[in-house]
Amino acid sequence: MRSVSMRSGPEFDRIRSVIGAIGSRESPDVLLGPGDDAAVIQAGSEESIVVSSDLSVEHVHFRREWLTWDAIGFRAVASALSDLAAMGARPIGALLSVAVPPELDLRTLDEIASGMGACLREHETSLLGGDLSRSPGPVVIDVTVLGAARHPVGRDGARDGDELWVTGRLGGAALAASAWAGDLEPEAATRRAFERPKPRLREARLLCDRAEVHAMIDLSDGLAGDAEHIAAASGVCLLMETENVPLHRALEGWSDPAAALALAVGGGEDYELLLAVAPGSAADARRLLSSEMSVDLTQVGRVTEGRGVRWVGGEGSDVDVPTGFDHFGGGA
Amino acid sequence: MRSVSMRSGPEFDRIRSVIGAIGSRESPDVLLGPGDDAAVIQAGSEESIVVSSDLSVEHVHFRREWLTWDAIGFRAVASALSDLAAMGARPIGALLSVAVPPELDLRTLDEIASGMGACLREHETSLLGGDLSRSPGPVVIDVTVLGAARHPVGRDGARDGDELWVTGRLGGAALAASAWAGDLEPEAATRRAFERPKPRLREARLLCDRAEVHAMIDLSDGLAGDAEHIAAASGVCLLMETENVPLHRALEGWSDPAAALALAVGGGEDYELLLAVAPGSAADARRLLSSEMSVDLTQVGRVTEGRGVRWVGGEGSDVDVPTGFDHFGGGA
Repeated sequence: MRSVSMRSGPEFDRIRSVIGAIGSRESPDVLLGPGDDAAVIQAGSEESIVVSSDLSVEHVHFRREWLTWDAIGFRAVASALSDLAAMGARPIGALLSVAVPPELDLRTLDEIASGMGACLREHETSLLGGDLSRSPGPVVIDVTVLGAARHPVGRDGARDGDELWVTGRLGGAALAASAWAGDLEPEAATRRAFERPKPRLREARLLCDRAEVHAMIDLSDGLAGDAEHIAAASGVCLLMETENVPLHRALEGWSDPAAALALAVGGGEDYELLLAVAPGSAADARRLLSSEMSVDLTQVGRVTEGRGVRWVGGEGSDVDVPTGFDHFGGGA
Repeated sequence: MRSVSMRSGPEFDRIRSVIGAIGSRESPDVLLGPGDDAAVIQAGSEESIVVSSDLSVEHVHFRREWLTWDAIGFRAVASALSDLAAMGARPIGALLSVAVPPELDLRTLDEIASGMGACLREHETSLLGGDLSRSPGPVVIDVTVLGAARHPVGRDGARDGDELWVTGRLGGAALAASAWAGDLEPEAATRRAFERPKPRLREARLLCDRAEVHAMIDLSDGLAGDAEHIAAASGVCLLMETENVPLHRALEGWSDPAAALALAVGGGEDYELLLAVAPGSAADARRLLSSEMSVDLTQVGRVTEGRGVRWVGGEGSDVDVPTGFDHFGGGA
């Protein structure tokens, strides 16, 4: 990878310091890294480039009272990488744009950068570039991620008869957020679910290799709301079973099962995946996910003719569930 | 190009409205546009992908008192596209992330989007995605652009003996900004230079086709500062001649030539290009730029052994020039 020197001056010293805190890595896909007018990448000849951006705005997506700066940086990158997972893409690189208010010192910026770098390294993703600015207000982070896939999986391929499966367990991040909102300290496991979300990049590629995946989405806004995206994009009805929603351990056995379900299907930011797969095609992937990655794969429903999302309870009767918050912060 | 439907709800209505205001265009490079978890593009098999991000933050990069919302959106996109020009790349698409404070109504958001769309159309660039959010403070826009080039041109290829050339004329945008800063209304031509910058995308490709371009950079921070980037990246000395700097028409014949020069070489946001080319290789491109695009190409100096940037005056003596503002807003 070629790298380019920037001129001297405090602005560029700051950029160099941030690039250092993020850390660099060699990648055969990256021909030119940060430092020039733009970065240059080249994916395999049979691959397409997959790209997505994700904003994280202070007071909207996070609060500095709840999280360390390191965790704020980590989550901003994880949230963007999760969109690559939802396409079944392998990550290549990221552009990180950060605006910080003048009252925050340079160490704060380096802490944000260090958290971003930790998440990039965890998922073998290179820094490609970005931008830095002062902000006369909140911290604003915009992360653009680029990946590559031979056959990117959209939201629009679900068909009548497909099975619906979910990775992992849901509601941990929402439980942590509801604790903070009530001025309580969340317990360690849910706090970790919120602070260090695990975009399911490797899991998604295993699923695409081993199962016949027709449609996929990451659960950034909550299972109920994100299921509606697959229904709308594919022109089908998703029949979802409340009894089969995999609850985060901290929600299991709650005395109020409706409240637990509301957190699991209405709360966002779990960054698990919802998939529509051909009937009977997921068994192999499920076994491997469990044995190699210790990640559950749970069938939560099936695709039928019709439109929208129908939730049914244990006795097969229709149930109302919360469809996630409309926070004017949805991604692309 | 495949496009994907999003579910209903006010958040997604807002996204649909913004996508409508930006406008869509068909492109053979774009396999999947906005609406899914990510966009999918595929450049030609002999091309590399070129990518860059650019932040525009209210009160740092622009003021709503100076510009219409439409112009704010236009400039944010133009500024990012200029980085593709500096690589000699053809533009493919853009991801537009916008955070707006709650006091601004939806029409404002649509006006920003409309200005962004106008700039995208002018340069045949497709909307790929992005993100929307509330902001508890300033308007923040982050634009990521993707393009493709067979041989992207970096800043690091300038060699001893190369000629240094600049496109267009410099200082118009800086003159408009200095008028606003003094509570004056800038004259129409300089106002337009600031509001509707023209990233030199077509010009750059013509130059790369017709001249032997070794290094290139766009003048976002000002000629003096950006020349230092080429010097640092290439490990050479740029010998620049103050007498040959092409001044914006509004600066020609000023009674204070030093002040005019300061605006032309110290002021940013002209988005012209500085190129290092093999000696004698620019004549053809210069003629075509003038006849086909009505754009000047002016030699402003040459590359020598050494380090840094040296400015010389009419009699060949060294001159001090301002090296641009360090606004903590530099791009990558």
